[in-house]
Amino acid sequence: MTNEKKEEKGITVKKEEAMPEWYEQVCLKSGLAEFSPVKGCMVIKPNGYQIWESIQDYFNKEIKKKGVRNAYFPLFIPESFFKKEAEHAEGFSPEVAWIDKESSGEGERLAIRPTSETIIYDSYSKWIRSYKDLPLRINQWCNIVRWETQQTKLFLRSREFLWQEGHCVYETEKECDKETNDIIKLYQQVSEDLLAMPVLVGKKTDKEKFAGAKYTLTIEAFMPDGKSLQSGTSHNLGQSFAKSFGISFLGKDEKKHLPWQNSWGISTRLIGGMVMTHSDDRGLVLPPKVAYNKIVIIPILFDKTKDVVIKKAKEIEKELKEYNPILDDSEEYSPGYKYSEYELQGIPLRIELGPRDLENKQVVIARRDSGKKEFIKIKDLSKKIPEILDQMQKDMLSKAKKFLKAQIVEVKNWGEFVKGIKEKKIVKTSWCNESECEDLIKDRSGGATSRCIIEEKASGKCPQCGKKAKVVIYFSKSY
Amino acid sequence: MTNEKKEEKGITVKKEEAMPEWYEQVCLKSGLAEFSPVKGCMVIKPNGYQIWESIQDYFNKEIKKKGVRNAYFPLFIPESFFKKEAEHAEGFSPEVAWIDKESSGEGERLAIRPTSETIIYDSYSKWIRSYKDLPLRINQWCNIVRWETQQTKLFLRSREFLWQEGHCVYETEKECDKETNDIIKLYQQVSEDLLAMPVLVGKKTDKEKFAGAKYTLTIEAFMPDGKSLQSGTSHNLGQSFAKSFGISFLGKDEKKHLPWQNSWGISTRLIGGMVMTHSDDRGLVLPPKVAYNKIVIIPILFDKTKDVVIKKAKEIEKELKEYNPILDDSEEYSPGYKYSEYELQGIPLRIELGPRDLENKQVVIARRDSGKKEFIKIKDLSKKIPEILDQMQKDMLSKAKKFLKAQIVEVKNWGEFVKGIKEKKIVKTSWCNESECEDLIKDRSGGATSRCIIEEKASGKCPQCGKKAKVVIYFSKSY
Repeated sequence: MTNEKKEEKGITVKKEEAMPEWYEQVCLKSGLAEFSPVKGCMVIKPNGYQIWESIQDYFNKEIKKKGVRNAYFPLFIPESFFKKEAEHAEGFSPEVAWIDKESSGEGERLAIRPTSETIIYDSYSKWIRSYKDLPLRINQWCNIVRWETQQTKLFLRSREFLWQEGHCVYETEKECDKETNDIIKLYQQVSEDLLAMPVLVGKKTDKEKFAGAKYTLTIEAFMPDGKSLQSGTSHNLGQSFAKSFGISFLGKDEKKHLPWQNSWGISTRLIGGMVMTHSDDRGLVLPPKVAYNKIVIIPILFDKTKDVVIKKAKEIEKELKEYNPILDDSEEYSPGYKYSEYELQGIPLRIELGPRDLENKQVVIARRDSGKKEFIKIKDLSKKIPEILDQMQKDMLSKAKKFLKAQIVEVKNWGEFVKGIKEKKIVKTSWCNESECEDLIKDRSGGATSRCIIEEKASGKCPQCGKKAKVVIYFSKSY
Repeated sequence: MTNEKKEEKGITVKKEEAMPEWYEQVCLKSGLAEFSPVKGCMVIKPNGYQIWESIQDYFNKEIKKKGVRNAYFPLFIPESFFKKEAEHAEGFSPEVAWIDKESSGEGERLAIRPTSETIIYDSYSKWIRSYKDLPLRINQWCNIVRWETQQTKLFLRSREFLWQEGHCVYETEKECDKETNDIIKLYQQVSEDLLAMPVLVGKKTDKEKFAGAKYTLTIEAFMPDGKSLQSGTSHNLGQSFAKSFGISFLGKDEKKHLPWQNSWGISTRLIGGMVMTHSDDRGLVLPPKVAYNKIVIIPILFDKTKDVVIKKAKEIEKELKEYNPILDDSEEYSPGYKYSEYELQGIPLRIELGPRDLENKQVVIARRDSGKKEFIKIKDLSKKIPEILDQMQKDMLSKAKKFLKAQIVEVKNWGEFVKGIKEKKIVKTSWCNESECEDLIKDRSGGATSRCIIEEKASGKCPQCGKKAKVVIYFSKSY
């Protein structure tokens, strides 16, 4: 049994009835995280951190294939660096925390990084001289601090969080465009293939794009309470940071050029999205691929047959070692109590093994997502377990995809638009693509914000302002 | 070629003549790190960060076997937490950086973690109720901030650095003692087996132990300039933090008890020690086990045979894929220039392949540590490469061990002690084990500090004060 196992009694509210309270209980009671005494910060407990580790492993493998290398830049950023890129400074300044030490150089203030473009590009301005230094592809895994004034929520919005930030530099706009796109596809892959969380993929409006970027691509997940969750972004920064930070290179033509840059990030917020997408009234449901312990083995113990059942359970534990099984042969709690505990923690598969099963050379396997049980012959376990896990991973994604699809309503006019938002749907619409209209939509619809513009041909008029529609876009409420 | 490859011309000073300047040049020119515009902070570049990643991989594997789980606690620590453990607060207060935001609760200041005992043990006081929650074994990988007033040095001393900190809680003193010891042995293993850097292992004096600890175990490496480098510590914290933070558990006897705790850490400082231990006047020398790119393949190109040589070089690259070989077939630089570049970067093996080698179905393999070259038949490469890498790793460790052993002088009186320190040796001596004497030794010897007490029987009198010797200890100058 893990150390997090306490006297908690399971989730006390229904997901459908009280989602925020349900979500908090799932995170707390499954041992993913807890609130910190420092307001707005959180403790990521071992059960939660292992999910982050599986995201790191998956993502590191993929970016290293692309030639991205990891590095580490300072936590502190001199105030003057922010000011070099005006839009960027304006976008981040309300959320920045500063420290009480002075950078001895000019006695200026030091910020705690809310994102690292400025400190990294100062280095790049020294590293890049020639086209031969390009493309430069670097990523860092680190903590980020944004002093949120909105109410914070475990994983979804906290004053400190963990993320990766990739920062690449290219000779040409074309390469930069391509890789900015490749990364958002990789984020979609992380979200769908690993976390079984389907996303909408598209471009942010000018109003919602990253401060200082040319454009921002985004993956948007949709939560069961009718709110979108921005889950990862990839920014084409154009040449503006290069200009501000003095990054230039000597081209093959022996002339000086400005390079093109992108930056991209996913964070521990993904864990929150995954929890909301899959979990249920019994607790956490984890996609098998992110679960460190994929199996719990619970022997059914009676006095006379105890020894032989535990012996067999240990053999099975050993045989299935690669799935990091937990064997819970404690006698203090009943099997039923244990079932609830491990369901709460989201262990994907439960193997039940009693004396009668042993006689029949079989076990019962119960899936955490569907509750479905089946008998499996013990001799077939090594072969069957990966099949069941694989099927479970697929089923979780397709269930979530079906839900996402069902939430999208295409609207033609303002009445339908408002009705869609009121019914907590994602509204798909042709739209004028003007910031002023975007503000009005938010006000008039009761809080809908633009999620992403997709590559479809617009038709007709903007449902809000009546101007000619220029793009197709999703609107919804959001986290 | 990597992006870090620039027009640098190699190391311009000799290791023996100007070690600090030599060290800085090796770190900078091999692309391990650079200075940050934020005074006292550093940028860990990809070549340096990949060494940290190999330390992480190695260490994670080992601690997970022991049942340690990774987690993440907040960067910020309320001031009142420090004050709960008096010795601890006193030890760290001069180096703490504070932020300008107030923790809304009591309006108290927030520190940026200089170590995380206090914030972690606040959580533990909520997590631990019963003996069934013990042992609790948790580790975190994170950044640490200590506002150094001494001159900072790349990797060795910087205001921000990366480390891991393990924090375990046990029912009994015996378990705690055992695992505090097990961890220092594991640190020795990381240092020797992975980094080929031999260390002395022992106990810190009361004066040098961790603020708040019962005792501190340490691994001490010894640098070629005659200074020890404290490279990892494991602290038995006794029950004092448990008392201060209200951590207690209900024992099997149904009574309330205070648990025993330890904490332990290694940091990016290890990278600095490794660089100084092995590198030479041509640049970085990396033990094969920490090198991401273990091989560079340099084809010798002539107009007529270019295509066939490059083709074979690519075949070799593919065959040796698991060693992440760099194939440098650029025609802009001469082979000799390339040799120097990759020697500077510390790539363990160089494969040279020219048209005549091809005729003889062989290549030349040059080892970075010894410069030794040998012909290897191309068909034998897959078999020979791991053997050569393995031998290189062993040779580097035994060379460094031989050096370390030769630096230790056993002394019997104060004259020999001072002579040993003056000659930049490690002085091994019987000693009185009194803090007052320790201070006097530092003053009177020109700066020698205690490194560690070892488990040998003391004899005779203390060479400094003449009191009865109680322990055997190493003294030396140090970083």
